[in-house]
Amino acid sequence: MTQTAGIDWNSAEKKVAEAALKKAYSREVEALISGVRAQAQAICLLEDVWQLHDFLSARRHEIDGKYDSEESSLVFTLSQLIKDGWLNLSELEGLDSSKRAKVSVLTRM
Amino acid sequence: MTQTAGIDWNSAEKKVAEAALKKAYSREVEALISGVRAQAQAICLLEDVWQLHDFLSARRHEIDGKYDSEESSLVFTLSQLIKDGWLNLSELEGLDSSKRAKVSVLTRM
Repeated sequence: MTQTAGIDWNSAEKKVAEAALKKAYSREVEALISGVRAQAQAICLLEDVWQLHDFLSARRHEIDGKYDSEESSLVFTLSQLIKDGWLNLSELEGLDSSKRAKVSVLTRM
Repeated sequence: MTQTAGIDWNSAEKKVAEAALKKAYSREVEALISGVRAQAQAICLLEDVWQLHDFLSARRHEIDGKYDSEESSLVFTLSQLIKDGWLNLSELEGLDSSKRAKVSVLTRM
């Protein structure tokens, strides 16, 4: 067990967190792909092409930094994914109640 | 008539050049749009999304600098568009023969 930023994650909990991250990631990627397809089909003008480009620049930047699985960041990562709608608090069963409480509080911030 | 970089463009010639630029631009934009649509439909992985993003970054940069209609740049602009396949030398009828010869030479460089 490693102690980071005052939160211990045992291996069972790490597995729960990793599975949750994986689930959220696959949902977000799937939604992004169908969003890009739809946006591409609706392109009429060059301006629309650059709008898609701007959209992808923003999403790339966001997704790159978002799935931080460092133990010290995990409660923040998980709460952000819940806020973004890619994860549900109920999918974190298996984490101890204090961690779930922390995640839950962070989702309301 | 303005003298720039040793090439005079009278108003009739400017109209021919502008029409050619417009034609090339609309062809290039149309091809870009259908290319983006096709590429978007073929997306399976997040990696493909970022590949589309890279492609759009490159095309945006390229197209932004390409349609330079300054008189001093026009022979270069036109020859580049011919090299890229968006324009045909025969579409420059109406320019005097020395300009067309310059454009033609530049397309072979």
